[in-house]
Amino acid sequence: MKTKFKLIALDADDTLWHNIPLFNTTEARFREILTASQDTDTIEQRLYQTEKRNLEHFGYGVKSFTLSMIETAIELTEGHIPATHIQEIIDLGREMLKAPVELLDGAEETIRILAEQVPLMLLTKGDLLSQESKLARSGLGGYFSAIEIVSKKDTDTYRKILRRNDLQPSQFLMVGNSIQSDVLPVLEAGAAAVHIPYHTTWVHEQADMEALQGKDFTCLESLRELPAWLTQTEWIR
Amino acid sequence: MKTKFKLIALDADDTLWHNIPLFNTTEARFREILTASQDTDTIEQRLYQTEKRNLEHFGYGVKSFTLSMIETAIELTEGHIPATHIQEIIDLGREMLKAPVELLDGAEETIRILAEQVPLMLLTKGDLLSQESKLARSGLGGYFSAIEIVSKKDTDTYRKILRRNDLQPSQFLMVGNSIQSDVLPVLEAGAAAVHIPYHTTWVHEQADMEALQGKDFTCLESLRELPAWLTQTEWIR
Repeated sequence: MKTKFKLIALDADDTLWHNIPLFNTTEARFREILTASQDTDTIEQRLYQTEKRNLEHFGYGVKSFTLSMIETAIELTEGHIPATHIQEIIDLGREMLKAPVELLDGAEETIRILAEQVPLMLLTKGDLLSQESKLARSGLGGYFSAIEIVSKKDTDTYRKILRRNDLQPSQFLMVGNSIQSDVLPVLEAGAAAVHIPYHTTWVHEQADMEALQGKDFTCLESLRELPAWLTQTEWIR
Repeated sequence: MKTKFKLIALDADDTLWHNIPLFNTTEARFREILTASQDTDTIEQRLYQTEKRNLEHFGYGVKSFTLSMIETAIELTEGHIPATHIQEIIDLGREMLKAPVELLDGAEETIRILAEQVPLMLLTKGDLLSQESKLARSGLGGYFSAIEIVSKKDTDTYRKILRRNDLQPSQFLMVGNSIQSDVLPVLEAGAAAVHIPYHTTWVHEQADMEALQGKDFTCLESLRELPAWLTQTEWIR
């Protein structure tokens, strides 16, 4: 495999390891705590609204999600939720942070193949400690020559990474499951992006389909297809 | 001012801007919420224990502190705290994240003088989003050529920073208010450290005085003294 890219950055959550299912399982258990007070749809909608409202100050990650669950529970029960249920919600958050890291199919093998050819960067947003801990537990840490945990992935973030690594946009490839975070801002910065959709997408990450009009990026079904795609790309250009 | 250092890294909380007073004010308001249930000392001790226990999974920062306040309140009231009080605690956390950034005396002037002579790095631990937001609001962002927000400041963290910046230990100086985070691990990595104590020290950061035996570092009273110290150091060596 030869590639024109001098740095390939990979997203982590739902690109290398499963993350959405953990949130979904927790949300299901959160709904169980509240079922006496509200129906499933209302709980889901209110939690979504609370998360959205809190994003500016609390940011992404499990701690922020936990605080949003607590606020939603207080609001939906009009302040009548017993403190023991709030403790259960905090425990849900703590369990998420301790949950085992489950790699996506083919992740380790693919990362190993790529790392032999080109420097890899893990580029993820979220909670610093929690992402570092997941990387450590994933066993993939040794394959990455750089780790960047950022608070948001916008065009400016990608431009900074290019500048800091002395790279031309054409030398950088981003790979991830989110159109909004891993594809659109990368293309805007003039670099290349490969989209590998996860089977479900987090509601905060759903991109406006119109924003994709006329954009040039590649969509692969699995991380396993990436090495072959890289070889082919080089051969064509 | 001439200096042998090729990079000077500065801690942020309680080195460039006030942080402990914000935690102290919040803790006072937290104690007020709980005064019906417990005396001040008990509340303080239990909160400290909860924070310590949660550090491994929740890490540093305001969100972690907020979750610890909630857990402490539930424990101290044996589950009888009303949810409205828990909402007040969450609001305390949100207010902390929105609080204005107050620079220490002389911080801006000193940073400006230093930045004209040598590349500066902001090197802080804590919550990614909250530290970035504080830096943006501090007005100091433009003086730093690099920002590193890390989950912990141990010797390994400093070694990585040296390696990533192609620096010999003797070319690096760390400046901060914490013996435990900004001095001891830096000396262990073979680099230099300047300690500028804040008038109070966070209880989690209090260093064992024995660990300081035979260590070679400088203690200054104020950031204002740093440029003169740098000039003098260069002159002596």
